[in-house]
Amino acid sequence: MSAIGFIGLGQMGMPMALNLLKGGHSLKVFDINEAAIQQLVTQGATAAVSPADAALDAEFVVTMLPNGTLVKNVLFGENSVVSALNKDALVIDMSTIHPHETDALIQAMSDKGFAMMEAPVGRTSEHAVRGELLIMAGGTKSQIERAQPLFDCMGSETIDAGGAGKGIRVKIINNYMSIALNALSAEAATLAEAIGLDWDTAMKVMSGTPAGKGHFTTTWPGKVLAGDLSPVFMIDLAHKDLGIALELANQVHVPMPCGAASRELYSAARASGRGRQDWTAILEQLRVTSGLTAKVK
Amino acid sequence: MSAIGFIGLGQMGMPMALNLLKGGHSLKVFDINEAAIQQLVTQGATAAVSPADAALDAEFVVTMLPNGTLVKNVLFGENSVVSALNKDALVIDMSTIHPHETDALIQAMSDKGFAMMEAPVGRTSEHAVRGELLIMAGGTKSQIERAQPLFDCMGSETIDAGGAGKGIRVKIINNYMSIALNALSAEAATLAEAIGLDWDTAMKVMSGTPAGKGHFTTTWPGKVLAGDLSPVFMIDLAHKDLGIALELANQVHVPMPCGAASRELYSAARASGRGRQDWTAILEQLRVTSGLTAKVK
Amino acid sequence: MSAIGFIGLGQMGMPMALNLLKGGHSLKVFDINEAAIQQLVTQGATAAVSPADAALDAEFVVTMLPNGTLVKNVLFGENSVVSALNKDALVIDMSTIHPHETDALIQAMSDKGFAMMEAPVGRTSEHAVRGELLIMAGGTKSQIERAQPLFDCMGSETIDAGGAGKGIRVKIINNYMSIALNALSAEAATLAEAIGLDWDTAMKVMSGTPAGKGHFTTTWPGKVLAGDLSPVFMIDLAHKDLGIALELANQVHVPMPCGAASRELYSAARASGRGRQDWTAILEQLRVTSGLTAKVK
Amino acid sequence: MSAIGFIGLGQMGMPMALNLLKGGHSLKVFDINEAAIQQLVTQGATAAVSPADAALDAEFVVTMLPNGTLVKNVLFGENSVVSALNKDALVIDMSTIHPHETDALIQAMSDKGFAMMEAPVGRTSEHAVRGELLIMAGGTKSQIERAQPLFDCMGSETIDAGGAGKGIRVKIINNYMSIALNALSAEAATLAEAIGLDWDTAMKVMSGTPAGKGHFTTTWPGKVLAGDLSPVFMIDLAHKDLGIALELANQVHVPMPCGAASRELYSAARASGRGRQDWTAILEQLRVTSGLTAKVK
Repeated sequence: MSAIGFIGLGQMGMPMALNLLKGGHSLKVFDINEAAIQQLVTQGATAAVSPADAALDAEFVVTMLPNGTLVKNVLFGENSVVSALNKDALVIDMSTIHPHETDALIQAMSDKGFAMMEAPVGRTSEHAVRGELLIMAGGTKSQIERAQPLFDCMGSETIDAGGAGKGIRVKIINNYMSIALNALSAEAATLAEAIGLDWDTAMKVMSGTPAGKGHFTTTWPGKVLAGDLSPVFMIDLAHKDLGIALELANQVHVPMPCGAASRELYSAARASGRGRQDWTAILEQLRVTSGLTAKVK
Repeated sequence: MSAIGFIGLGQMGMPMALNLLKGGHSLKVFDINEAAIQQLVTQGATAAVSPADAALDAEFVVTMLPNGTLVKNVLFGENSVVSALNKDALVIDMSTIHPHETDALIQAMSDKGFAMMEAPVGRTSEHAVRGELLIMAGGTKSQIERAQPLFDCMGSETIDAGGAGKGIRVKIINNYMSIALNALSAEAATLAEAIGLDWDTAMKVMSGTPAGKGHFTTTWPGKVLAGDLSPVFMIDLAHKDLGIALELANQVHVPMPCGAASRELYSAARASGRGRQDWTAILEQLRVTSGLTAKVK
Repeated sequence: MSAIGFIGLGQMGMPMALNLLKGGHSLKVFDINEAAIQQLVTQGATAAVSPADAALDAEFVVTMLPNGTLVKNVLFGENSVVSALNKDALVIDMSTIHPHETDALIQAMSDKGFAMMEAPVGRTSEHAVRGELLIMAGGTKSQIERAQPLFDCMGSETIDAGGAGKGIRVKIINNYMSIALNALSAEAATLAEAIGLDWDTAMKVMSGTPAGKGHFTTTWPGKVLAGDLSPVFMIDLAHKDLGIALELANQVHVPMPCGAASRELYSAARASGRGRQDWTAILEQLRVTSGLTAKVK
Repeated sequence: MSAIGFIGLGQMGMPMALNLLKGGHSLKVFDINEAAIQQLVTQGATAAVSPADAALDAEFVVTMLPNGTLVKNVLFGENSVVSALNKDALVIDMSTIHPHETDALIQAMSDKGFAMMEAPVGRTSEHAVRGELLIMAGGTKSQIERAQPLFDCMGSETIDAGGAGKGIRVKIINNYMSIALNALSAEAATLAEAIGLDWDTAMKVMSGTPAGKGHFTTTWPGKVLAGDLSPVFMIDLAHKDLGIALELANQVHVPMPCGAASRELYSAARASGRGRQDWTAILEQLRVTSGLTAKVK
């Protein structure tokens, strides 16, 4: 069992800290919200009066804060972690912040001789309560191994993202996809309702197609990811069908800005001569637009 | 076994007609592409010289055409289906056209005393070849029952969409979702590559979250669809994470227009006071924006 | 003075017809709204019972209708214009319809030996009342010359758009620009208000910059249109400033979907290596994305 | 004539500093680019070895830097401005940075007893060379009055934006509008070219309409800004025309993401019951969407 300084007791940090306590670890906790500290003290934690105090004699310092400026202040500001941290401690930032901030913080810690990794979490506050978070670990293999007992208290799955800074990057990609997809899904569902479709029927159809199952494991592996753009469903037809949907949506007053944006991407793909390529070529199209080297042909 | 007039022998129509032949049906086929007709004749079909000819003495007339104008011409133009059709035949349009065109065609056929249903198909040309299409049937229960033997030759699953016009509507919704999702997925995958993420790692993470599994069967049922907007993941946080992803994407020159559009939807949700609601409230937000009656509260 | 059949007496058509009457022309008018016909009869027009009736003995037939399907029906449907039209009459469609519809209608009329041009109008219903519309004439020079006396009754300015189909095209471009600009302007004005700016101050600044004066006659002629992409204001900086504005807007909950979309265009331009080119290079970027041949270098 | 510390000698800062020298002021200049310093020394400036050095004995310190972090470092970092600044000096930040950064910096300076205002500039590097910048001054009236002789060297017009922080805000609004408009203009021009329009003809039309003249001084003042939403051009028709343009653009493969986004705004306006309001009501629509209080009705 380890001595852990835990800083940041919000909607996520609180249950994470509780699960570390339940796991038998010794916690010294800090937050600007004094009530949150007291709540954990009643569960067996020790109150810290500052980030520095939380870091004193800790084997691990975990930070779970709303933004990168706060993480920076906690680590390097007044009465900060580095002013009290042992050189052999490991700092684990579990916040969701900009990856460039993560990079800079790990570098700055390293410059002072301290070890730091990031381990942002996936899933929801309910998972946090149940200790079933997804841990996206960015650090050396030995750092991840060392932190694993802590991760096992807070989460049910740890993914080694491939090195420092990769944990926060995979988190950002995952959240981008799921958050934007939520909006796109709302567009489809709202249009379905507006045109009088029964939701169960729509669900029944979509649950068996890429609409519900996504493309990553269905349409892409055999086509664009395999370098094969011969069409099983042409860009031209995908573009046509999007056009029908958007025309219909505009007729019934359902704004679909995500879908409208996607249509212009398909239009650009057609302008690039991809009209008769498979619809999965939209990935290749966007890659090239982004300045990445074409993979197919 | 039935006498079927089949009109439209393109990338989809050709294998569908072949599968009807294989199923033992008698086919009279028409297309403007004479070679396509001949190809089917070698497989046992009879050549028709016009839509009218294909319709003559048919129990079913199936149309599989690129757009609504063509379907209209085939049904009502010169030498058209209606000029030869028996009153007890059933016309099945399997094309993907605008639902309002479908509605108008079914009405126009009905006005002349003819029975017509729509049954657009899902999945790809490869599924068409294997007779594994998804049939989205829009018609009366008795029409669907009557057409079922034909559907069983062409597809592996038939969904009763709930009445005339509902088949094409569910098809459009499904295609909207899957086609736009394809573009959004390309954004996430391109950003992942541009920031140096290993795709397998990204996939490993996303396959266990709504990013890969979608929202319809994961986050929505227990929250917004159940009328519960208490947050397990707040709109404010979703908006923040989207902002980080978009800032990162702009720094590495990956255009993400779908995601950028979705961020403005979350921004509107926050402006509507939904910042501390669950992220699934984006559906409720878009419903209200579309003039639908609020379901929650 | 000419004998004119006028079909379509809506918000625009009514004052246009009135101004033709005031100009001394003889009008036979048709609309599905009988009251509109009667209103013009009290002003000296003759009532027509059908499009054919309006066309009978007319030197000109003017159509001003809500969509292309109606124009087609009026020209070619039952009791339609062509059934009664003199071969030496000139049909002038002043409706705003899809240019491809215009092309097809002019061709179809020509195939039957009839002369037709298009002349959609710019400005507003108030200008229509005052006879101050902008006429965008698409036809041969002799057709425009022949129609000029009519145009002079309805408008204050006629532009020869360069041939058949060009009038409707320039109208669509103009309307696209002004209608989308209206939305973009609303984004800027709403953000200005949300951050506490005095509108007069904002206006004072913008009236002296491309924000208020546009780019067509200010930044473009000396740079991108002259083939000079050396930077007076770099794409990179434009992209940066857009980013600040969008971040600010998201902080104060002002959705700016047009601006968000434009930022991704700048991002694509940077990915194409245009970061240090002049901001007017965004035109060249979009041209190339659209498959047009690069003009610069 | 004043003693001025000038920090930041880039594409804009260099000509601005030169014009201050030409105006007879005494300059001590600093940049991380030593060559830039030497270039100004040959024109009569004194070289500073640090921001502190530049600030020593200065009556004014002008900063013109690429981002807010740099401004903060120059003011408060090592060998920074505040370490040497006289209490009666005036710091003028002319950089374009996030307004919240400006607010924080002015506050932080004030907390230490220093006076600071912002004065970002409009127009281009060519205007900077000619001393014809637009100065958007954010500060007290007495600060602006005091800085006016400097502004008169660098610019041809100074606008009192209405207080501290308002200068940078009006700059951001102006740049947002002009930068996004540049992209939108590119969409219209590219479509015009793709459909074969002569640019001079398009320009001739647009120069006389809101497409070229903007809405701020044409359509808005008499309608939405006057609280009058009675239609001279209905939202429904604007939406229809946008739809035609976007359909056309998609047919000829010209991606128009800004216009596509704007169409969804009009669609939302229609969903809100504004279809028969004047098109300028799009401002009111976006204001309400943003949580601002409705002004009309």
